[in-house]
Amino acid sequence: MTNLQSPVNLHQYRQNFSALANKAYFNFGGQGTISRQALEGIHEAYEYIQQWGPFSTTVNQWVMKQGKLTRSAIAAELGTTSDTITLTENVTAGCNIPLWGIDWQAGDRVLMSDCEHPGIVATVRELARRFSIEVSVFPLLETLNEGNPTAVIEQHLQPDTRLVIFSHLLWNTGQILPLEEIIDLCRNYNSHKPLQILVDAAQSVGSLPLNLTELGVDFYAFTGHKWLCGPAGVGGLYVRPEARETIAPTFIGWRGVIQDGEGNPVGWKPTGERFEVATSAFPLYVGLQRAIALHQEWGTPQERYEQIRQNGQYLWQRLCQIKGVQCLKTSPPEAGLVSFKLTENRSHGKFVQTLEKQGFLLRTLLYPDCIRACVHYFTDRAEMDRLADAIAQLINQ
Amino acid sequence: MTNLQSPVNLHQYRQNFSALANKAYFNFGGQGTISRQALEGIHEAYEYIQQWGPFSTTVNQWVMKQGKLTRSAIAAELGTTSDTITLTENVTAGCNIPLWGIDWQAGDRVLMSDCEHPGIVATVRELARRFSIEVSVFPLLETLNEGNPTAVIEQHLQPDTRLVIFSHLLWNTGQILPLEEIIDLCRNYNSHKPLQILVDAAQSVGSLPLNLTELGVDFYAFTGHKWLCGPAGVGGLYVRPEARETIAPTFIGWRGVIQDGEGNPVGWKPTGERFEVATSAFPLYVGLQRAIALHQEWGTPQERYEQIRQNGQYLWQRLCQIKGVQCLKTSPPEAGLVSFKLTENRSHGKFVQTLEKQGFLLRTLLYPDCIRACVHYFTDRAEMDRLADAIAQLINQ
Repeated sequence: MTNLQSPVNLHQYRQNFSALANKAYFNFGGQGTISRQALEGIHEAYEYIQQWGPFSTTVNQWVMKQGKLTRSAIAAELGTTSDTITLTENVTAGCNIPLWGIDWQAGDRVLMSDCEHPGIVATVRELARRFSIEVSVFPLLETLNEGNPTAVIEQHLQPDTRLVIFSHLLWNTGQILPLEEIIDLCRNYNSHKPLQILVDAAQSVGSLPLNLTELGVDFYAFTGHKWLCGPAGVGGLYVRPEARETIAPTFIGWRGVIQDGEGNPVGWKPTGERFEVATSAFPLYVGLQRAIALHQEWGTPQERYEQIRQNGQYLWQRLCQIKGVQCLKTSPPEAGLVSFKLTENRSHGKFVQTLEKQGFLLRTLLYPDCIRACVHYFTDRAEMDRLADAIAQLINQ
Repeated sequence: MTNLQSPVNLHQYRQNFSALANKAYFNFGGQGTISRQALEGIHEAYEYIQQWGPFSTTVNQWVMKQGKLTRSAIAAELGTTSDTITLTENVTAGCNIPLWGIDWQAGDRVLMSDCEHPGIVATVRELARRFSIEVSVFPLLETLNEGNPTAVIEQHLQPDTRLVIFSHLLWNTGQILPLEEIIDLCRNYNSHKPLQILVDAAQSVGSLPLNLTELGVDFYAFTGHKWLCGPAGVGGLYVRPEARETIAPTFIGWRGVIQDGEGNPVGWKPTGERFEVATSAFPLYVGLQRAIALHQEWGTPQERYEQIRQNGQYLWQRLCQIKGVQCLKTSPPEAGLVSFKLTENRSHGKFVQTLEKQGFLLRTLLYPDCIRACVHYFTDRAEMDRLADAIAQLINQ
């Protein structure tokens, strides 16, 4: 099944995704297409719950089991063990857990990149307001084509820096940060308090091969509904075992606490479950498990990444050839996000809307002002060619 | 359709819920049965998203619209306007929003009842640890059959009390608190800082007729998956307009912020949306809307409550007649939760498990140690009779 170079196999595999039948889809960084298998898993879970519950010993045990299976399936994808995984509603909630869990003291400093998601920016500002912490921003965007992100971070670290925040794979430009090198830098930096790292992994989970156990990042927040192609509403947070006790749970509910015989909360669960809150849309856990299983049937994370990268590079090349298109990256992309501008002062918003009417789904970004096309490992060449042709034609109109 | 006294109509109406077909269900306080209509709504939503997206202008507009429709449907049920409603994942998240949103100062005091959910107890303890606030607990349990909860709260208010926390309809005993009276007491109490009220409405929303606009409670947190019979994973928080600016958003994401033309967060959304975080399981919003619509087809909140109360009283009477059963309430219950103990020192856990094997779904509670049976407006007399008979028989075995 792994030879997607064969158009027959690819055509067959794409049948798993109903969303691909009637359009050319290029926004896996926004939301992944959900497979028939994942949707069936969700529907079966709803039926199962009504059949045996909804609230019963049987269903409650099933819910616990689905939590465990989902944490293990995610852990296998991320190259780690399931005790490090907290299930969340989305990547933002995952970022908020360490952000609010650190015992901030006035004067502590956060260093974050200039490419972070507005939700994270707003959270850090609110932390600064409440706890009188300092916020520094390092210029990451300008390192896209030249310069060294690690060196820029190094220049911006200060002894009072306590947390560094950046994305592993940038949502706006598609740049991959050298995570290992940056972690190494931070571990060896002589800060007043232990320097921790929070990574927004919204774009990297499901695109890049990962070994989080070896990597040693402190906090790595992700979602299941983008590159993993699971249902919206299930995401997670990896917390390094050594970092678990350095943060306290903030939003708290029955899922994170241990209760005594009278129902009094007497402690936190020992694993990443301690940061989980309360009732979630549990049937969706089955959906995410099935989504991951389908990817694994196709190939290893490394094999899928290789194909994503090949596709990204193919689309980038095609776009580079179009007069009136300027790709943000001047060298081939290393993953599936390909961002570009129109050089003739056209409105990106209108351009994307016109493409959408023609059946090509992309999105605009506000900073930097650009259009983003994303390709997955099962994106086919024919649809990339059709997109490039449609863009060229639209520019020349 | 409103005459459920007619067994034919009731039988027909119950066909909407597949969970009722193969068991006698008595745990609506745990999780409601989901209707065929609600499940179809969810499945249609998933298909719609794949058809037109998943990420596209069309689907993004649809998501915004479903958020609006869900907030309005909830607002109509709660007797308020949709600007006061924040959509959350569950009731606990709804409680956490004001709990972490208040600008706590050392020495501020929380007064809470001795019947609150472990998740809320644990959150308040963590707030106390982080912000050096004081926590008082008032003995609510002992007022179940005699005594006056309002008077007990009055005795426990202190000038440094800043927040009072209790449940509107108690999850363990089924007691209803006189919310209007308590609000009146708190509004007129001479505290150092404005005294606010947070109500855990897990059991009251979908059981009691409500007019939150008139009531003037500050924070009222609820879920859609219990008495409203919506899918697990969608709940909400009512924040009184006058209280909106008294708390700051804590867990923060794109849904709560206003962005400028470059994607910078520049403020909070003006309504209750400001406390929403990021991507949720949006198809479930359709499920909750359909669940609410079905209830409204059957009758008004007042009519549904009357039937719930009648059913609760009927079951309570039947249980009171069984030797070896002691209902916690010595007078007929005012809602659908009927809690009881076995007097002959039997294990409640084993008893409930045996009942579950016979097709009767109830649950145990740890504090007070008891068994809880819940009846909805569409619970039928025959199944209450069968439950009473099964309990009597099991006791005599």
